[in-house]
Amino acid sequence: MSDRMNGAESLIRTLVAGGVDVCFTNPGTSEMHLVAALDKVAQMRCVLGLFEGVVTGAADGYARMAGKPACTLLHLGPGLANGVANLHNASRAQVPIVNIIGQHPAYHLKYDAPLTSDIEAIARPYSKWLRTAPASARLGRDGADAVVAARTSPGKIVTLIVPADIAWGDGGAVAAVPPVPKPVQPATASVERAASMLRSGLPTALLLNGSALYGAGLMAAGRIAAATGATLLAPYPITRVQRGAGTCPVLRIPYVPEQAIELLQRFRQLIRVGAPAPVSYFAYPGKSSVLTSPECDIYELAKPEESYVGALEALVTALSLQTTEPVVTGKAERTLPSGGEITLPGLAAVVGALLPENTIVVDEAMTSGRGLMAATVGAPPHDWLGNTGGSIGIALPLSVGAAVAARDRRVLCLTADGSGMYTAQALWTMAREGLNVTTVVFANRAYAVLQREYAGLGVGAPGPRAADLFDIGRPTIDWVHLSKGMGVPASRATSLDAFAKALRNGLESDGPRLIEVPL
Amino acid sequence: MSDRMNGAESLIRTLVAGGVDVCFTNPGTSEMHLVAALDKVAQMRCVLGLFEGVVTGAADGYARMAGKPACTLLHLGPGLANGVANLHNASRAQVPIVNIIGQHPAYHLKYDAPLTSDIEAIARPYSKWLRTAPASARLGRDGADAVVAARTSPGKIVTLIVPADIAWGDGGAVAAVPPVPKPVQPATASVERAASMLRSGLPTALLLNGSALYGAGLMAAGRIAAATGATLLAPYPITRVQRGAGTCPVLRIPYVPEQAIELLQRFRQLIRVGAPAPVSYFAYPGKSSVLTSPECDIYELAKPEESYVGALEALVTALSLQTTEPVVTGKAERTLPSGGEITLPGLAAVVGALLPENTIVVDEAMTSGRGLMAATVGAPPHDWLGNTGGSIGIALPLSVGAAVAARDRRVLCLTADGSGMYTAQALWTMAREGLNVTTVVFANRAYAVLQREYAGLGVGAPGPRAADLFDIGRPTIDWVHLSKGMGVPASRATSLDAFAKALRNGLESDGPRLIEVPL
Repeated sequence: MSDRMNGAESLIRTLVAGGVDVCFTNPGTSEMHLVAALDKVAQMRCVLGLFEGVVTGAADGYARMAGKPACTLLHLGPGLANGVANLHNASRAQVPIVNIIGQHPAYHLKYDAPLTSDIEAIARPYSKWLRTAPASARLGRDGADAVVAARTSPGKIVTLIVPADIAWGDGGAVAAVPPVPKPVQPATASVERAASMLRSGLPTALLLNGSALYGAGLMAAGRIAAATGATLLAPYPITRVQRGAGTCPVLRIPYVPEQAIELLQRFRQLIRVGAPAPVSYFAYPGKSSVLTSPECDIYELAKPEESYVGALEALVTALSLQTTEPVVTGKAERTLPSGGEITLPGLAAVVGALLPENTIVVDEAMTSGRGLMAATVGAPPHDWLGNTGGSIGIALPLSVGAAVAARDRRVLCLTADGSGMYTAQALWTMAREGLNVTTVVFANRAYAVLQREYAGLGVGAPGPRAADLFDIGRPTIDWVHLSKGMGVPASRATSLDAFAKALRNGLESDGPRLIEVPL
Repeated sequence: MSDRMNGAESLIRTLVAGGVDVCFTNPGTSEMHLVAALDKVAQMRCVLGLFEGVVTGAADGYARMAGKPACTLLHLGPGLANGVANLHNASRAQVPIVNIIGQHPAYHLKYDAPLTSDIEAIARPYSKWLRTAPASARLGRDGADAVVAARTSPGKIVTLIVPADIAWGDGGAVAAVPPVPKPVQPATASVERAASMLRSGLPTALLLNGSALYGAGLMAAGRIAAATGATLLAPYPITRVQRGAGTCPVLRIPYVPEQAIELLQRFRQLIRVGAPAPVSYFAYPGKSSVLTSPECDIYELAKPEESYVGALEALVTALSLQTTEPVVTGKAERTLPSGGEITLPGLAAVVGALLPENTIVVDEAMTSGRGLMAATVGAPPHDWLGNTGGSIGIALPLSVGAAVAARDRRVLCLTADGSGMYTAQALWTMAREGLNVTTVVFANRAYAVLQREYAGLGVGAPGPRAADLFDIGRPTIDWVHLSKGMGVPASRATSLDAFAKALRNGLESDGPRLIEVPL
């Protein structure tokens, strides 16, 4: 530790010491000393995005698969501002992210130069921990505090604002990162209460979230389901769920309120593990937001700061199910549909037939993708990642981050023309980093979800001006051109056979591919 | 006024009554009743953007050219969040914008559904006026208040948050929009003080902003310059300046601090008209942020809420210059460079030779564009619009808005590969609306400004990892593909002749065109 180390270097070295070794970034002038520090610390992998929505969305995808935070490095208030929509999604995903944002030195801030803004105010709605670094000598410690705050259950977005003179100032010292507090174990009484609910014989569901949806947590839930007949549910806004043949079956609550109500009405008991009670995405005139039956007893077994896995394993013990075999999904017959024209069920069947084991599926296909989960239930085991906060445009960035976190796995990104256009710049980062992401764009040339919602809200049939606002086919977006323009090989599939061929090719090739499917 | 009118319709009709008749939008489910109202009110022109950064940037460009606000219609917190970076720029441009943002009804908000966020907190840093509408019957009045607040000098960003049930609820009433308060006339003593500074014979500059940079304001400034020898200056972050042959010459303060200091050091007096005192964009170790001489007497003649034109005309009267001819720029010889390879001076010369009268030039060409203003000084009269807040990615959206505001004028959008990639979706809106925008992309495959800043900060030569973060040529971005993918005809110019031909073709054709110039 040279005593000539500046603040910037002490921060980057502290982050690496705390296990944060990937930096998604789009830096500017005020971050140049932090960039110089990145130059010195080879253990930190740097991934450039051409737009900050890519940067923050990638940090989200990384955290979902790596189970630890990446850092972002963003340029002042505007750089952060470009990234906050995907931070909204990340804040709903319960994932850790360490944001590093440059700021003008205090002596420059007072002049209100053009790029000046109140960065704390911009970051606050998305940050569970927020600090403007006060001194170069303390910057290492600020970094350590940020890492611990981010990694404290259930995973938090933290933001450390670094004035340029604090970065370039001497006296930096690498800080030791203290151990991350273990998640709290739910009280015995809570576990007992949940156990007695499960023993009651009433129709019961376990609503799981976060680490309860894969690995040991899901295994424990599967034992409980096998023994008690309880249904395992996941929220519609899904962070990550393990699924496919040999894994424990979980039903995702549908987006459409009527379908969600149909699923949920039969339960008289609902046990929440890190998940909020199910409500509709939107409000509709004259309809209730609550999706469960009024007679349903909703109980929170594990709060977000508590251990989801610990809660489920304690429940297994309370019910004496340690040796029970968990309920598992059977292996599906996998046959490719025999050609023909593009239909949504046909496309879903092709995905179900070809999905390789261990694929990470990132799903923001919106209306076109609603049959995809059903078609892949019995496919080889895989992970499924969704949009957690409803801010559209997450799939491509999320895929970047997931692929960076899991280099030995394939990523299948299912997106649509409307959602894909928000942060299409992610394709460029896929090409740059040679990521194994196959992107399928369901191109229905419409904001189809809005066409449906318009009717669902009882507004009547859209008139010509409203209809025009839902029509994104004027002009047609050519995704093959867009993709090639950013360095990702692309093709257009206009038959099921062509789609199957392109999908297989994408999933077997190294590097990114894109397939546009006109609907 | 039907007594069955809902809140949404009363709001849209009130906005139109207040002169707000263009809506840049990307709506969602929570805004569907507002969309239905747009369907009923044909006087409101709707322009769809595929990403909200396009929407807010277009509203900025519209306001700069129309001199009045457009409204935006955005989807909840995330839709607003996607648009705030360009609202940062707009807030520095002193332009009016009326943001309409949907929100969940209060009864739904309490369930914290995935899209829930604190919209007021997200909007506050960018809004001089902010209100969440409390009742359907008051929504028209809220709209009227918003319009008046936005149009009150010098132009403000205002945000009206509309819960869905307030939009769909009955009892809406169109409100009368009260007259907008006239800008305050600066005190006579202020004008006298400025007049005596100008009479002193000391080297003096007038630093102009907003409406002082075109029309009657610039004409008055030109009279003062002619009679007193004062220099007319514009800030580097320029909202709009009228220039070219026959207009009053204004020097823009350079971005590079050393060049700005060289220009400004000679002045012993600086009279500010709506502009902040000149400071450097960024802080640099060991350098002052202030660009003027320590001996310079800086005086604020007109504050942002005061009348810039009124102040300058009062100054003309105080100096008895009503009949003085303003100083004007001469007409330049316009000759096309005789072919050859692409060079920055060559490109600038072609633009200077071909610029049609009355063109609106939107400039975010960054490092590649620094010679463009010099090359167009004596071109036919035109307007020049810049990036006012330093948030990169404004040029394409700004061009959309300027073209919507001024359908009878040509727009020349000068951008770069780095800045253009932020909100390239604007090309799609140009194609959709058939806007007469010719976009030139200076493709140097680099964040060249950061390469320069790195050296300017004294960090030393970038190492391989830092250099990689400034290299956006891996992979190469193909702008011809990108542009065609969004419906805008495009070509690549690899010689000055080809550039001249493509530029002439773009400026003479109807609808948008794009020219990529590899550097």
